[in-house]
Amino acid sequence: MARIAYVNGRYRPHREAVVHVEDRGYQFADGVYEVVAVIGGRLVDEDWHLDRLERSLKELRIAEPMPRAALRLVMREVIRRNLVSDGLVYMQMTRGVAPRDHVFPKGAATSVVVTARRKKPPAAELLEKGAAAISIPDIRWARCDIKSVSLLPNVLGKQQAVEAGAYEAFQVDREGYVTEGTATNAWIVTPQDELVTRSAGPEILNGITRLAVIEIAKGQGLRFVERRFTLAEAKAAREAFVTGSTAFVMPIVRIDEATIGDGKPGPLTRALRQAYIDRIGRAAA
Amino acid sequence: MARIAYVNGRYRPHREAVVHVEDRGYQFADGVYEVVAVIGGRLVDEDWHLDRLERSLKELRIAEPMPRAALRLVMREVIRRNLVSDGLVYMQMTRGVAPRDHVFPKGAATSVVVTARRKKPPAAELLEKGAAAISIPDIRWARCDIKSVSLLPNVLGKQQAVEAGAYEAFQVDREGYVTEGTATNAWIVTPQDELVTRSAGPEILNGITRLAVIEIAKGQGLRFVERRFTLAEAKAAREAFVTGSTAFVMPIVRIDEATIGDGKPGPLTRALRQAYIDRIGRAAA
Repeated sequence: MARIAYVNGRYRPHREAVVHVEDRGYQFADGVYEVVAVIGGRLVDEDWHLDRLERSLKELRIAEPMPRAALRLVMREVIRRNLVSDGLVYMQMTRGVAPRDHVFPKGAATSVVVTARRKKPPAAELLEKGAAAISIPDIRWARCDIKSVSLLPNVLGKQQAVEAGAYEAFQVDREGYVTEGTATNAWIVTPQDELVTRSAGPEILNGITRLAVIEIAKGQGLRFVERRFTLAEAKAAREAFVTGSTAFVMPIVRIDEATIGDGKPGPLTRALRQAYIDRIGRAAA
Repeated sequence: MARIAYVNGRYRPHREAVVHVEDRGYQFADGVYEVVAVIGGRLVDEDWHLDRLERSLKELRIAEPMPRAALRLVMREVIRRNLVSDGLVYMQMTRGVAPRDHVFPKGAATSVVVTARRKKPPAAELLEKGAAAISIPDIRWARCDIKSVSLLPNVLGKQQAVEAGAYEAFQVDREGYVTEGTATNAWIVTPQDELVTRSAGPEILNGITRLAVIEIAKGQGLRFVERRFTLAEAKAAREAFVTGSTAFVMPIVRIDEATIGDGKPGPLTRALRQAYIDRIGRAAA
């Protein structure tokens, strides 16, 4: 089956899915994106993703290229044409094509790319055994709350993690506090059984899976606190995990040389993972 | 005349100069670039630009796509085909096309785009009267020494400057020191007649025009110091200017509400600008 991509109003074979070299996404990272999981043909937490997309565009003053209803149709058409039942949809919008100049161009139309692909959920073995993380300094810019394609530091951090045999890198700010992973939000369970993740703010992306797990935690009456935590606190935590649209809820059992808890995915992490999977399964039903 | 762009081995009409939507430059800002001025058909400080390009690639571990000699030929061919006598060449190299994943792809070929366009030097009137700058917090990442396409904060800063009726924005770090402009390096002349610009380091791009002006200053035996300076120091300076491949040496006569010196381009700035123009004119002769 040939993959199909939506590019600026047209459905095109994947290999012909191209943008101009003067698209500002290419020359300036002047654009935003979303990755939405597809489970059983359904878009997981679609409205939250679209809310965030609209917020990112607004923060950067990039014009919305189409009404939300139209974008919903495009996403569904791309899923349909690519026969994606379980996988993900990727959407990118940029400030459009214009002769290279830092200043916002006048009259450029927002570029839109939507692709979809099949992808299996995270490997059961990794979930069963838990994953490792390394810690790295957070060298990113000050507006990580905008889901921009300015992802070079995230790329470098993730590569560093993989080369160290780890799944993710916990980014640590100047004061020693964990901000988030390179493509996930970071969570811990303290020795006092508090479930903790950093508050939303300019230093982190407010993950959709993060929001879903918060909803679950509150629904279950867990002792949940939004606050920053240090790397040292994470290493001494009872449990740790990361959340993201492709990671779902991924147990972290090692951070650098420190073993988290007993080195196995903890009970609360497992329970939240199951609740999250049930939740997105329900959404798909 | 139809413009021609070099894209991954082919010379193509500008409107057909395209890259794949999964080029990592588009999805991750995972690439680098250079802008080289062309004066009288000659590339200004070509070797310095190529040195820096190679350094940027190396820092990001992006494979060099071709030997330097081949790239020189491509640049010349693009200049020739576009009939550029005075203008600029833009080169961009990215980590190539691969299914979206933060981790470096295996076996992807470095993407190469080279374009050229005519452009007149900065308007004489602006140079004569001097330009205004605003100050903004430096919100960029910690590796501004790499000339990456991760330019979103620079775009936002420049836009803010233009909306305030200014030419450039001086970015100021957390400690109150000026790092650089959004597309230029910042310089001052102190009341003690010291010529000052920030030392090269991870916080700034080591501009080629910056290097050329340093060479000139040293050649003229000026009292030149590489050190950081505060925004307050800049506002109280005798003269101020910015340097860049398209700005050349641009006098700054106002920063926020502060008038610099007597509000006119200062004598040292004028002299350095003339020396720089002579220098690139000589290079073109």
